[in-house]
Amino acid sequence: MDENRALDHENGDEEMVEASQIRRRAITNNEEPGSEIISIERVFEQKPVPTWREQLTVRAFVVSFFLSILFSIIVMKLNLTTGVIPSLNVSAGLLGFFFVKTWTTALERTGLLRQPFTRQENTVIQTCTVAAYDIAFSGGFASYLLGMSEIAANQSTEANTPADIKNPALGWIIGFLFLVSFLGLFALVALRKIMVIDYKLIYPSGTATAHLINGFHTPEGSEIAKKQVKTLGKYFLFSFLWGFFKWFYTAEDSCGFQAFPTLGLKAYDNSFYFDFSTTYIGVGMICPYIVNASMLIGAIISWGIMWPLIGNREGSWYPRGLKSNDLHGLEGYKVFIAIALILGDGLYNFVKVVARTLPSLISTLRSKINLKTLPIQDNNNTDTSIATSYDDEQRTKYFLKDQIPKSVAIAGYIVLAIISIIVLPHIFHPLKWYYILVIYITAPVLGFCNAYGAGLTDWSLASTYGKLFIFIIGAWAGSNGGVLAGLAACGVMMSIVTTSCDLMQDFRTGYMTLSSPKAMFISQVIGTGMGCIIAPCVFWLFYKAFKDIGIPGSQYPAPYAIIYRNIAILGVDGFSSLPKNCLVLCYITFAAAVLINLARDLAPKKIARFIPIPMAMAIPFYLGAYFTIDMCVGSLILFIWECIDKTKAKIFGPAVASGLICGEGLWSLPQSILALAKVNPPICMRFLSRKDNSRVDTFLST
Amino acid sequence: MDENRALDHENGDEEMVEASQIRRRAITNNEEPGSEIISIERVFEQKPVPTWREQLTVRAFVVSFFLSILFSIIVMKLNLTTGVIPSLNVSAGLLGFFFVKTWTTALERTGLLRQPFTRQENTVIQTCTVAAYDIAFSGGFASYLLGMSEIAANQSTEANTPADIKNPALGWIIGFLFLVSFLGLFALVALRKIMVIDYKLIYPSGTATAHLINGFHTPEGSEIAKKQVKTLGKYFLFSFLWGFFKWFYTAEDSCGFQAFPTLGLKAYDNSFYFDFSTTYIGVGMICPYIVNASMLIGAIISWGIMWPLIGNREGSWYPRGLKSNDLHGLEGYKVFIAIALILGDGLYNFVKVVARTLPSLISTLRSKINLKTLPIQDNNNTDTSIATSYDDEQRTKYFLKDQIPKSVAIAGYIVLAIISIIVLPHIFHPLKWYYILVIYITAPVLGFCNAYGAGLTDWSLASTYGKLFIFIIGAWAGSNGGVLAGLAACGVMMSIVTTSCDLMQDFRTGYMTLSSPKAMFISQVIGTGMGCIIAPCVFWLFYKAFKDIGIPGSQYPAPYAIIYRNIAILGVDGFSSLPKNCLVLCYITFAAAVLINLARDLAPKKIARFIPIPMAMAIPFYLGAYFTIDMCVGSLILFIWECIDKTKAKIFGPAVASGLICGEGLWSLPQSILALAKVNPPICMRFLSRKDNSRVDTFLST
Repeated sequence: MDENRALDHENGDEEMVEASQIRRRAITNNEEPGSEIISIERVFEQKPVPTWREQLTVRAFVVSFFLSILFSIIVMKLNLTTGVIPSLNVSAGLLGFFFVKTWTTALERTGLLRQPFTRQENTVIQTCTVAAYDIAFSGGFASYLLGMSEIAANQSTEANTPADIKNPALGWIIGFLFLVSFLGLFALVALRKIMVIDYKLIYPSGTATAHLINGFHTPEGSEIAKKQVKTLGKYFLFSFLWGFFKWFYTAEDSCGFQAFPTLGLKAYDNSFYFDFSTTYIGVGMICPYIVNASMLIGAIISWGIMWPLIGNREGSWYPRGLKSNDLHGLEGYKVFIAIALILGDGLYNFVKVVARTLPSLISTLRSKINLKTLPIQDNNNTDTSIATSYDDEQRTKYFLKDQIPKSVAIAGYIVLAIISIIVLPHIFHPLKWYYILVIYITAPVLGFCNAYGAGLTDWSLASTYGKLFIFIIGAWAGSNGGVLAGLAACGVMMSIVTTSCDLMQDFRTGYMTLSSPKAMFISQVIGTGMGCIIAPCVFWLFYKAFKDIGIPGSQYPAPYAIIYRNIAILGVDGFSSLPKNCLVLCYITFAAAVLINLARDLAPKKIARFIPIPMAMAIPFYLGAYFTIDMCVGSLILFIWECIDKTKAKIFGPAVASGLICGEGLWSLPQSILALAKVNPPICMRFLSRKDNSRVDTFLST
Repeated sequence: MDENRALDHENGDEEMVEASQIRRRAITNNEEPGSEIISIERVFEQKPVPTWREQLTVRAFVVSFFLSILFSIIVMKLNLTTGVIPSLNVSAGLLGFFFVKTWTTALERTGLLRQPFTRQENTVIQTCTVAAYDIAFSGGFASYLLGMSEIAANQSTEANTPADIKNPALGWIIGFLFLVSFLGLFALVALRKIMVIDYKLIYPSGTATAHLINGFHTPEGSEIAKKQVKTLGKYFLFSFLWGFFKWFYTAEDSCGFQAFPTLGLKAYDNSFYFDFSTTYIGVGMICPYIVNASMLIGAIISWGIMWPLIGNREGSWYPRGLKSNDLHGLEGYKVFIAIALILGDGLYNFVKVVARTLPSLISTLRSKINLKTLPIQDNNNTDTSIATSYDDEQRTKYFLKDQIPKSVAIAGYIVLAIISIIVLPHIFHPLKWYYILVIYITAPVLGFCNAYGAGLTDWSLASTYGKLFIFIIGAWAGSNGGVLAGLAACGVMMSIVTTSCDLMQDFRTGYMTLSSPKAMFISQVIGTGMGCIIAPCVFWLFYKAFKDIGIPGSQYPAPYAIIYRNIAILGVDGFSSLPKNCLVLCYITFAAAVLINLARDLAPKKIARFIPIPMAMAIPFYLGAYFTIDMCVGSLILFIWECIDKTKAKIFGPAVASGLICGEGLWSLPQSILALAKVNPPICMRFLSRKDNSRVDTFLST
């Protein structure tokens, strides 16, 4: 459970927050947006918005560079030790602010400051740093890349031939990363207006980040804004201290509040528990009610009903005594059914978007490509983008100002894909060019699914898609070299899916801070470039300095390397190796996802808003129910608050949520540093049944 | 720790609450009382106050009788099983209200109701029930009485002669209880005005009870009062549910939130931890800052400095490897030093009160005894009783209206004492008449100390005084029969000290509900009478029905019986058996207590209010530091609240505190019933050091 959480989470990017009630409700997509009680952009009115060129300052990238190195080291080390990585995005935003602020304040005093520090510049730093250090995770140094090595291969009895082994070397890793990491940026950039403005996806972490950054840069004068910042600060502090407090009781993964069987031991075994995570309470407060409700319904259907029922078939549907992460067993059902549901919803929406966008795209292409601007707002779904509030008006205006031409995006993607298709088979011999072609054709769809899901729920399931492709390509490539091909395919897919989702998250942040999308895009390109060099170098340092990387029981066991390799070995056996009835269930859930979506679109508004969203339902299928409980607690708090004082809840709700998300987020930084310094929490708070407890009592007293 | 807590606590009576800001500050005794923002008595103005005769209704005593039986059974069973008894006083108040309310509402509908249900009548029920079922505890059925029996004697190698054994029998137990239980009522009744009005002692639980009862009976119409009741209800519910939630994780005493090492394992070992008890947070909110600060200082001096230092002398000052509750070891220091501090403060204040009261008493006696009224307000310390607010005026008026003549109190005490002195030696042969005389001479002083301490801090230390007298009388009586004499003396002392403190608590409740002191007194007399019959009968039922009472490892081990007997065995060896330097330290603390009090009285007001109160400091000396942490958290919450919004804090603070105290208090009832039904909490939340945890991990995985 933890593994997936941390892994997906790292991609999921629990950053920082704001959410105006408009977005909150608008997610259900058909309702009219409410009127905002306090307008953030009114507060910022007198501050000029710099041009996109002014937003990209040299100092921003210098700061980003150093932060990237710092965070890459932290992530790499955690990656190689436990594989559990907290989200450091808040820290990135905060540290970026403090470094540049200190610098500019010092310069200001000496009178040398030429350009003031703006929230747009802050957003650029945050974006660039996250893009860079994310590669330390999505580069798979502790998962698929290390899974290719001899070290991992020697731990298994199968697939030990040289065809299935590729040992790490600095050269090919950097090359590989450069080939695959930029594709994601181009894959979805053209859809940003649809995701951010039309669908009004929330990206809770992106929203939180934006709110925090806006808070930092709020000009003097606004009473309510000041109060909001104060509220944010208060809950930020609380959440930070709470994270600190919880840390003491977490001597191991199974200890502490994160393992608190709040609903009983039986429910805990089925992953139903409230884990006192302020992050997810905050996320729950930002997500619309329907999303949280959908997730809870999904959790009940999967962890409450399906998995226990399937679990009872152990020995009949699948062999007994498998490890919990063996795809031959229950894990197989979880992964593939979740993916079927996600694909069902994702494909439905993708088709819908394409069907809407295509006519306008074709007509524009016909009237010759105009490279300067190709305004997306010309397409025929302007009906959904009614910007009523001042904030929305301003934000939409700036968001649509500097365009990245669609043709550039498409051309960039095609060119990069062609280069990849030519070069990658030279790096991984079993990875045939047509596999890569298939990956690059499907990647935008999956990227869309992931970005859409993350926009709704804050969870990125990049590693799930990666695992799917280890399996598919592994099965396709067959026994000779299939393992290597599968792992490489995983890398390609994970990079694209992660990056495209991150980019969209950043666009959301940019939207809310009036940052230019062009600046954001360039910042991510530069950040990704940095990451492609920094991450492999940092890995190389570890790899050369510590000889025991990847060896179980050592200081750097990198547990996921072996897990990923095992999935690949399974994949080589093909779909027939999946547990019984798994595929049938996948077909059913896929169809269900499409039908539910149809129902949402065709039913009258009144009913449609109560139909759950399949994408949100799918997230707990694979990850577990615990965070849906947290998020529903967040919803409940907001609901009660709105009952008591609707106005106050609307003004301060987002600030409270942001504070809760960001505080625990920042705590990750000292927590990681403590872990690196080998300062372990002193106490384990654990939960034993009565029976176990008396056994332990007698054991400890002897 | 737990044993003492529960034991003393049962006496301590964490009942229910209110505290107006006047009392809060006035405790520091010299400050002018603040003006109340909302007057409770104004709200009740239109409701007539019944005469003291009207307050004592037959239905009240019928309800009390049945509640007494119910609670006596619960207390007795818990007493005989674990010895840990939660306070059930809130339940008593609540159930009393609901029974009579249902009854009167039913009658009202039929038109037969002659007398409406008033808050005074409710107070009478509560007082009577508590007085009755308290005897199930203070009667020592699981401590000193059972400690006298053959069963307890056979578990020890010493003092097994018939002279030291007295087996329980229904007859002498009832007789004994009737002889000793009423003395406490007369011992302090004359001092009630000094305690409640002049010293303005708070009796947090008594205050809470009063607030709850006032809340129940609030007439319609007052907006703020309604809001206060709503606030109380909200926190009551929260506290109740929190108690319920905590229960699940308390499979054993060492489990759950009550054993949460919030400040680290090292601090936990020295009893410094926050145990998430809403009761004590509420008590802390009601107690004045200086009391909580004094307790914290006391806790730091004793558990932070003295006990660890003395603990280091193990093997030198006292033998190694003693049990933790052996008075030969560290426990000896704790008990005797705490008592020295309490006696120092108590005696100082007693002497002060006597010095003030005596002249007026003598002059009144000289002018012939006027049996009708002997108004205490005629004495010469009216200077401290400036009742400025309307509430205080009204309450003082009614509190001083129906007087219990001092002469009745003194005469009653002397008559009862003489009867006891004659009869008791016939029940316990080794208990000479002069021992009893000494006990009855010192009892009022100790009763005063205890009532004063409980008024300040809500903790009654009756069992501590009881233990002191096991020791003193045991030492005096010597080897032949000393054990029996000591245990009997303990019973006499505990009864007096418990009852007098309870009475004062009830007077506080009565003061705040405009109940007549005369009615309260009569109610307690009747309740005590009931208890003297109900408690022994219930015990007898258990004793005859279950043959294994008092046998270790059985269903009813009654653990305290043996502990008390062991203290007596130690006492027979005399003061010389106390650990090294213990007496010297006692002298020093006694002197310190007197000096600190002198300083408080002589220093200028400005400085005096920052000098800690020795009585409050002494409580944690013996009990541990944990509850002082809770109480300081309560203080901190109130302090922050007052900083943010002083007016709101003043109006709603007491309601919040009362809700917190009463909710967890009521939870004790279902908790006890669950324990009786042998429904045990399913989970143990425990805290292990890293090292222990990995040992447990390997143990559980095998």
